[in-house]
Amino acid sequence: MPGNRVVVYQGPGQVSVEQIDYPKLELPDDVVDGLGLPKQAPHAAILKIVSTNICGSDQHMVRGRTTAPVGQTLGHEITGEVVEAGDDVLFVKPGDICSVPFNIACGRCRMCFEGKTGICLNVNPARPGAAYGYVDMGGWLGGQAEYVMVPYADFNLLRFPDRDQALEKILDLTMLSDIFPTGYHGAYTAGVTTGSTVYVAGAGPVGLAAAHAAQLLGASVVVVGDLNADRLEQARSFGCETVDLSRSGELGDMIAEVLGEPEVDAAVDAVGFEARGHGQDAAEQPATVLNDIMTIARAGASLGIPGLYVTGDPGGVDENAKVGQLGVRIGLGWAKSHSFTTGQCPVKKYNRLLMNMILSGKARIAEAVNATVLPLSDAPDGYQQFDRGAAKKYVLDPHGMVAA
Amino acid sequence: MPGNRVVVYQGPGQVSVEQIDYPKLELPDDVVDGLGLPKQAPHAAILKIVSTNICGSDQHMVRGRTTAPVGQTLGHEITGEVVEAGDDVLFVKPGDICSVPFNIACGRCRMCFEGKTGICLNVNPARPGAAYGYVDMGGWLGGQAEYVMVPYADFNLLRFPDRDQALEKILDLTMLSDIFPTGYHGAYTAGVTTGSTVYVAGAGPVGLAAAHAAQLLGASVVVVGDLNADRLEQARSFGCETVDLSRSGELGDMIAEVLGEPEVDAAVDAVGFEARGHGQDAAEQPATVLNDIMTIARAGASLGIPGLYVTGDPGGVDENAKVGQLGVRIGLGWAKSHSFTTGQCPVKKYNRLLMNMILSGKARIAEAVNATVLPLSDAPDGYQQFDRGAAKKYVLDPHGMVAA
Amino acid sequence: MPGNRVVVYQGPGQVSVEQIDYPKLELPDDVVDGLGLPKQAPHAAILKIVSTNICGSDQHMVRGRTTAPVGQTLGHEITGEVVEAGDDVLFVKPGDICSVPFNIACGRCRMCFEGKTGICLNVNPARPGAAYGYVDMGGWLGGQAEYVMVPYADFNLLRFPDRDQALEKILDLTMLSDIFPTGYHGAYTAGVTTGSTVYVAGAGPVGLAAAHAAQLLGASVVVVGDLNADRLEQARSFGCETVDLSRSGELGDMIAEVLGEPEVDAAVDAVGFEARGHGQDAAEQPATVLNDIMTIARAGASLGIPGLYVTGDPGGVDENAKVGQLGVRIGLGWAKSHSFTTGQCPVKKYNRLLMNMILSGKARIAEAVNATVLPLSDAPDGYQQFDRGAAKKYVLDPHGMVAA
Amino acid sequence: MPGNRVVVYQGPGQVSVEQIDYPKLELPDDVVDGLGLPKQAPHAAILKIVSTNICGSDQHMVRGRTTAPVGQTLGHEITGEVVEAGDDVLFVKPGDICSVPFNIACGRCRMCFEGKTGICLNVNPARPGAAYGYVDMGGWLGGQAEYVMVPYADFNLLRFPDRDQALEKILDLTMLSDIFPTGYHGAYTAGVTTGSTVYVAGAGPVGLAAAHAAQLLGASVVVVGDLNADRLEQARSFGCETVDLSRSGELGDMIAEVLGEPEVDAAVDAVGFEARGHGQDAAEQPATVLNDIMTIARAGASLGIPGLYVTGDPGGVDENAKVGQLGVRIGLGWAKSHSFTTGQCPVKKYNRLLMNMILSGKARIAEAVNATVLPLSDAPDGYQQFDRGAAKKYVLDPHGMVAA
Repeated sequence: MPGNRVVVYQGPGQVSVEQIDYPKLELPDDVVDGLGLPKQAPHAAILKIVSTNICGSDQHMVRGRTTAPVGQTLGHEITGEVVEAGDDVLFVKPGDICSVPFNIACGRCRMCFEGKTGICLNVNPARPGAAYGYVDMGGWLGGQAEYVMVPYADFNLLRFPDRDQALEKILDLTMLSDIFPTGYHGAYTAGVTTGSTVYVAGAGPVGLAAAHAAQLLGASVVVVGDLNADRLEQARSFGCETVDLSRSGELGDMIAEVLGEPEVDAAVDAVGFEARGHGQDAAEQPATVLNDIMTIARAGASLGIPGLYVTGDPGGVDENAKVGQLGVRIGLGWAKSHSFTTGQCPVKKYNRLLMNMILSGKARIAEAVNATVLPLSDAPDGYQQFDRGAAKKYVLDPHGMVAA
Repeated sequence: MPGNRVVVYQGPGQVSVEQIDYPKLELPDDVVDGLGLPKQAPHAAILKIVSTNICGSDQHMVRGRTTAPVGQTLGHEITGEVVEAGDDVLFVKPGDICSVPFNIACGRCRMCFEGKTGICLNVNPARPGAAYGYVDMGGWLGGQAEYVMVPYADFNLLRFPDRDQALEKILDLTMLSDIFPTGYHGAYTAGVTTGSTVYVAGAGPVGLAAAHAAQLLGASVVVVGDLNADRLEQARSFGCETVDLSRSGELGDMIAEVLGEPEVDAAVDAVGFEARGHGQDAAEQPATVLNDIMTIARAGASLGIPGLYVTGDPGGVDENAKVGQLGVRIGLGWAKSHSFTTGQCPVKKYNRLLMNMILSGKARIAEAVNATVLPLSDAPDGYQQFDRGAAKKYVLDPHGMVAA
Repeated sequence: MPGNRVVVYQGPGQVSVEQIDYPKLELPDDVVDGLGLPKQAPHAAILKIVSTNICGSDQHMVRGRTTAPVGQTLGHEITGEVVEAGDDVLFVKPGDICSVPFNIACGRCRMCFEGKTGICLNVNPARPGAAYGYVDMGGWLGGQAEYVMVPYADFNLLRFPDRDQALEKILDLTMLSDIFPTGYHGAYTAGVTTGSTVYVAGAGPVGLAAAHAAQLLGASVVVVGDLNADRLEQARSFGCETVDLSRSGELGDMIAEVLGEPEVDAAVDAVGFEARGHGQDAAEQPATVLNDIMTIARAGASLGIPGLYVTGDPGGVDENAKVGQLGVRIGLGWAKSHSFTTGQCPVKKYNRLLMNMILSGKARIAEAVNATVLPLSDAPDGYQQFDRGAAKKYVLDPHGMVAA
Repeated sequence: MPGNRVVVYQGPGQVSVEQIDYPKLELPDDVVDGLGLPKQAPHAAILKIVSTNICGSDQHMVRGRTTAPVGQTLGHEITGEVVEAGDDVLFVKPGDICSVPFNIACGRCRMCFEGKTGICLNVNPARPGAAYGYVDMGGWLGGQAEYVMVPYADFNLLRFPDRDQALEKILDLTMLSDIFPTGYHGAYTAGVTTGSTVYVAGAGPVGLAAAHAAQLLGASVVVVGDLNADRLEQARSFGCETVDLSRSGELGDMIAEVLGEPEVDAAVDAVGFEARGHGQDAAEQPATVLNDIMTIARAGASLGIPGLYVTGDPGGVDENAKVGQLGVRIGLGWAKSHSFTTGQCPVKKYNRLLMNMILSGKARIAEAVNATVLPLSDAPDGYQQFDRGAAKKYVLDPHGMVAA
């Protein structure tokens, strides 16, 4: 039996690739002990990982903006081939290539049945919701690795209908594990529909995915805002309009330059708590984006907030920010009768739909986010480039199956 | 032609009843000038007011917690008899007794067509949305009066099917102009449905209305929290459970004493920005209730926020509060995947449904909120009693039609 | 190991109680062979049946109105105590008392994830959807028995929180397996909400359950129609209005006598394909109820159709009826912009909500349907009484746990 | 004051262009007498018609398949310039170019407020709902004319933001009055969303519009079926797949040739009651399409039925068909848990969204339906060509403003 190499957090700014044991069909101890479940997991499968992406939310850990301990394994954007399956895995088989939603879910609780797989009640003793390779998310091993164990495999895995087609479109399909559904969730919960004008705050991979999703949902115009010129250029490459937040001036005025009016029908926060203000050398202002989207969304709008806000941030700008309490202009939102949807995207709610769009050629998410392949061993370099604002989405290729 | 007596704001803590002109079928100057509309209003009607209630949001003005000028006419909870109608009023007739939604709406704009009458685009040059007798809400005259002009009468008026029945049930029907729909909106947008456990923050009239609405929507248990013992007693009088926030201790623990678990399925903020903290002598903490409802609503819950938050509050506890920027624990809400609905209730969306419940005897809102009748001339006393926390909803009776 | 007694269809008009083998943690051969699944079922549990009801849809088989073969085991309304559980049953335990939804579902397919457990893709090789003890529904053994095997137990079982409370309320809770959710589904898909006027066609157990559900959903008035005087009396016993279809006259006129207008906001077909026309000695007219509800539902209404329509009926009134093709007044429905929801109720979508209503005392379904307990051995008599139109819902009690 | 030329029905197969009086700001006598409304209409406007299309539903009248009398004026797909407006028309002005929804609605009744403008309660004494130039639809004059009177103009008219842009895109914008929203309604109520596979029955203008709408809603594949080769060719011209129903064979097999499976996620009936069966020389079988879409839509699907079904058809194939009672395979639909949405499209619910798509260049409806301009005087020829199955949508140009 082979070992397993995995990306590991080594302290602020540092990751490395380490050797660990090959996974077993067993639940992590945190879950076993905390929830009183048996160790053996006949519902689980082992996947040989075909592709696994570096995520902006990994960056929060690696920048030291969470309580992640040194040694935390990383990676939750996983696509792989089933190589082993427990006795109660009935509907996927070894050889199947599957997308793994980043949120681990049991498929048997009330939340899962309501489609809310991001807050499953049975996978994390600390709180509803779990993920692979993430602090406070249940102790599940990371998937920036060669192999990974996926529990409740029949429920969690999205099987691609054809193996060859899957490998051919792997750079698109790899985005189904997180950012494409997450961006779609942002646009969808913002109420984007036929004819909407849309503002997406942030041109990182989630923002770009939200922008492409808005196009698929029928937006008439999508405007993306960021401070980073390369990322704005990337947004323009697939038909978005952009506003450059490093300029001085009011956001509404910039929107008006594009749309002829200072408001949009729908707005998405694809940034989260590490937001910076506007203008050159803007400092961190964690509620900036929340307040921006209230400012430029029209009265009655819904605001989609897939950008991450946390309950503990050791690097927060002040004592309130350190516990996730931010200065939100709720008076403004209330006066405009806004509604807000927050939280992790329940990936499984959307990944099948988006797979269909990729396989039919209607969605081109790899191009939109500028998917860029690296071998697993180059993960540390990928983290650094991404942290510096590269307009790329890094896809790790542990077995050379993507490059092939 | 008679004159018209109306309640007028005279500075912090003071109101009086003053004589003004009898209304005309004309738009207010603010609207005419600001929106370029003709003064003449063939779509308007004059109502002889049968009942008109004092609202908690009037108190914000009277306490000096808004920018309302001395001389502001008051009153937006109006029920009346049509006594005059313009040439383009086709579907209500003199003699009809009607409920008047507090939000003034044109019925012809995009927002009205979407049912969002609280943010009509054609009734207030300053922003979407208008109301009778309220600061910054379009300059429409107040309806704590003998007569009032209602524009776009065919759209705005809810006609009661039978005059005698209407007068018989007037203490219930008078609540259709604002608090019953507002409470219902809170419960409805909190997702209350068959079997829900519900927490309502605040046992003032809107909170009590939200609690009764939650019962009508099928809640299995409704828990109401407040600092005021009389108001909690009122909540218990129609079958609610209560938690006394003047006690020390965690809200979740108090909820658990009632429900056996520290969380509810749905939660409503029926307090708004003048919220106080918990315990004896609790000081004003404007985000207390927002943060409370995130704490005790289960993951995945929707939070209904009919309680008012404002963009300008001269009496705010600090500089941020004065512009409506509050310390919201958004990290907590995000971790729990909460969604939030804010804003004025669009009364017209619900008032017909609730009228049917009153007329069929299924809803008993007058009892729930302890409707208490006063002559118009006693309005100043009603304001004082209400401000002191009386567990009553004051109904003014300008023509002695309620008392009769 | 004990044997198992179960009710068996013996030909038109005849059932008997027979001894069969005690169930195993294994899938039925139809499912194993047809879907290529392993025989062993680590996801399954064995239940000792506490209560199991006779259903109107059982009657279709027993009357010979389906293709059910002699020897078909019967019963799909099951409540029981877990006595054995497979290795992959993690969230229910021996000793738990649980409701079993009549629709068998895997919890792992697309349909289950969308909440459509009535058309699960993995439980019946013949078509989407399965049930216990029913012809063409996957070959699962019936549950009018002492014991039953429940597959995918974590997904299918609804655990009652407290054993003693469950046994105390068992006559209400036993209705959660089918008719209470089915009636609720009818009312819910008919759009019943606060203030609605509702017509329910049929005062059998599903109709009465729909009527009670409509009350819980906030109906202002519920009108129930039937030809059977006893059943109409039963409907009146919990606050419904009734119309007697054995009278001559137009249904709209009868509705108008109750409501003052000949139309309702929402209508439910709780009869299905064995419908009879109106008046004394009305003959079978299988589309009568469909056409009735289009006639008396207002324009724009939604029509809920939980009443069963089939694709094969050997006793149909003509060749078209024998294949489920009926003379529907679709022109009328179209002119009124009606929408229609058909199909099996997905019980799991509603049973938790309704359990909460029973446990909190808000729902009193046993009284509404006149639950009447029989020992299992009296099942043949129960079938006969029910077929003759008794205004009762028969609950079989295989182990004397209900009677106790 | 000019006169007005209008297309008039002259008996089966015959229309002519006749001179009538220039319209006035007055309601038609049917509405005045039947509903007790004043003749004068201060809410109305007169439009100079820029474009007005021939509709498939006009064909039903002209073929003698309705009870339309000789002399019936025709035309309900109207786009025009406001040339006169009543005293209570406040938000459109002379010179504005506007789309007119074919369904006439008051904007003041319960149905209009719910967005159900196709069943307005105040525009037709015979039943809910009205239209211009249509039998049994309230007696409103037809709009295949030079001028037309539009009541409740603020509510009914959709103003285009820029006159020059409007005239430039007029061949697309003219489709907003009926077929583009009607097709969209079909696709939308069929639940088409991101990634759906869709079957559209009928490649006439509404079917093509439904197909294009399905693309905008995010369909992964759209399959259109028809007997007419030219119309199928037209469907392929904008990216649809097609199935030729003049071939022998099962529809499911034809679908499987395209999709690899015999079922689709969503299906639309864009044909209605004059449906023919499949194969060469197929005879009229009015329920064919309804039964087809149940056959090929997957379990759990929603079926959109914008195709017209009527309550009276003098040319129906049998006595049942003459009153709109058709042999519907409801047993099949029920077994598959289908839901059905019927009725006129409420145009106003969608026209603004679709206008935005046209103006932003995302929708190209004129190309999809092959818009073809004719002078008003050539209307008789247009009717004949269309009746013969031309793969064109005829746009009449009464003032030479389209041609310009």
